Amino acid sequence: MPEDRVAASSSDLTLVPFVVLEDLLQRIFSRHGVSDDNAKILATNCASCERDGSLSHGIFRIAGYLSSLASGWVDGRAVPRLEDRGPSVIRVDAMNGFAQPALAAAVPAILDRVSATGVALVAIRRSHHFSALWPDLEPFALRDLVAIAMVTGFRCVAPPGGTKPVFGTNPLAFAAPVAGTHPLMFDFATSAMSNGDLRLAARAKAKVPLGTGIDSHGDRTDKPEAILDGGALLPFGGHKGAALSLMVEIMASALTGGLFSHEVDFSGYPGAETPNTGQVLLVIDPERAGNSDFAGRVLTLLDTVRASGAARLPSDRRYRQRAEANKDGIPIATDKLRQLIVLAS
Amino acid sequence: MPEDRVAASSSDLTLVPFVVLEDLLQRIFSRHGVSDDNAKILATNCASCERDGSLSHGIFRIAGYLSSLASGWVDGRAVPRLEDRGPSVIRVDAMNGFAQPALAAAVPAILDRVSATGVALVAIRRSHHFSALWPDLEPFALRDLVAIAMVTGFRCVAPPGGTKPVFGTNPLAFAAPVAGTHPLMFDFATSAMSNGDLRLAARAKAKVPLGTGIDSHGDRTDKPEAILDGGALLPFGGHKGAALSLMVEIMASALTGGLFSHEVDFSGYPGAETPNTGQVLLVIDPERAGNSDFAGRVLTLLDTVRASGAARLPSDRRYRQRAEANKDGIPIATDKLRQLIVLAS
Repeated sequence: MPEDRVAASSSDLTLVPFVVLEDLLQRIFSRHGVSDDNAKILATNCASCERDGSLSHGIFRIAGYLSSLASGWVDGRAVPRLEDRGPSVIRVDAMNGFAQPALAAAVPAILDRVSATGVALVAIRRSHHFSALWPDLEPFALRDLVAIAMVTGFRCVAPPGGTKPVFGTNPLAFAAPVAGTHPLMFDFATSAMSNGDLRLAARAKAKVPLGTGIDSHGDRTDKPEAILDGGALLPFGGHKGAALSLMVEIMASALTGGLFSHEVDFSGYPGAETPNTGQVLLVIDPERAGNSDFAGRVLTLLDTVRASGAARLPSDRRYRQRAEANKDGIPIATDKLRQLIVLAS
Repeated sequence: MPEDRVAASSSDLTLVPFVVLEDLLQRIFSRHGVSDDNAKILATNCASCERDGSLSHGIFRIAGYLSSLASGWVDGRAVPRLEDRGPSVIRVDAMNGFAQPALAAAVPAILDRVSATGVALVAIRRSHHFSALWPDLEPFALRDLVAIAMVTGFRCVAPPGGTKPVFGTNPLAFAAPVAGTHPLMFDFATSAMSNGDLRLAARAKAKVPLGTGIDSHGDRTDKPEAILDGGALLPFGGHKGAALSLMVEIMASALTGGLFSHEVDFSGYPGAETPNTGQVLLVIDPERAGNSDFAGRVLTLLDTVRASGAARLPSDRRYRQRAEANKDGIPIATDKLRQLIVLAS
């Protein structure tokens, strides 16, 4: 789906510098009930996704953010509260606000805990995560730390054999430093497709592969609208993906004290789209656990994978699109850009 | 594959009490170069796998254990060395011995660290893991802790698009307490099939599903012998499973200071089968991170998954087979039992 960037003719596109998009998005968030501090964080996050080609979590999401804010379901002005729960554990109550400001508030404590003990477990609850996970992890990998994150969503994924959705798309992400180059990162939904990509497919009237989801009767379907309209996505990779999805629910919701995906109830808030659940992060200092050349060892591994003939590594496309956007600007459909300017006005 | 237990006619089977199998296996290990302490640990582990129906890691593995020991590749008498690496990190040098004694040696320190800080990261290197991962985790979940483990193997899995094996089958396992009942556990290879199951399929002259692996020309095949003979397994679930396999290499080998799967070189040790790599465990006290009813919340989640119509949860079959074996004895093919008795004599 992210390739639709390529499909648009160049005359429909405007090339927008990262900082210009960031400023525009910050203004939009600020004008729609988000505090200045939180607006800056969300804008940087959303512009980064658009820049890196994570289009399902870029400006495509703005309508959902604003709709949720307008409904009163999420508090754009929330000030997260940190709780010290021991030398390696940090709890954060996001106070029904967005997850990214909650994580940002915890960063100094995380770095302090990792430095003191080698590991930090970050348990965020009452948080709305409506973006990709990799932007949460990249700053840690750039500091030569290893990081793992999981987040729950709203119920839209049925366990294998089940006919009702229980899990969120429950992404899992990982980041590690690599000697002399960008961190390695991956970030994927434990569902067969992310909600963002499913909605992009529905909007494009495209079909999806069989196995992506079931319709409202529990039958497998290739129609994204049928999955969205009373059906459910399925986990990727059969019972193994389903086990991972279950792990994400346990780690990001039971462990943190947040709601499970199946407990999120938007019904009193028409227009609400952002799930109020939980997020967990594990941040590790690799040099405390292993040898003194961790990042060099990861480079050795990645070189071996490439030499085996593997087409690409998890982060390759993201960094390529980032480099292009940093050089030429972020290509944005001109009608979409006009809509953003209206929202900022 | 584990259902072949059912296929054998009852007259071919002997029902063996757990403790009798454990004693027999301990005697076998002791007679083949394993110290008494280590033999007890390996015997309990192997008998537990057989009891719970993890047949590819039960007595099926004895030949490989003994062959590796006889080759001089693994040290059955190794005494693991613990290194304190900060309040939440424990390094263990398995001293070219089996991984289970290395973990056993670390357990008091792990419980101490978790109690003090909320989290313990256990990094084991120069270790031979030749069994399932769930027996490593269950004792922690029975103490109301959450545990995650990853282990590398020897190269037998090609990244998607690659034609040469780089990764091990690289299993990932997870365990969490559940209020009033057994812990939830899963343990799966990040390859499309485990090596044990692949070898059981080859022995049974069975076919495997397309997508399980490639032959020595890089072509997909349904013949387990072709995968074993110069071919490679593939990761489960396409690029997502491949990303997980890469994460396991980074966590279990780069982080711990152990060898990567692709670096394991048996060639000077004919008969060697056990990989000398690394293992990582994360052990977490959930009540430090979340609410005081973690195990109750996990029960709520599992009840919801069952109510959705899901056929079974990850641990269901294991506990059912364990209950049957505890009641009636572990069903073992009588000719296999005779072979074990010979090995113990």
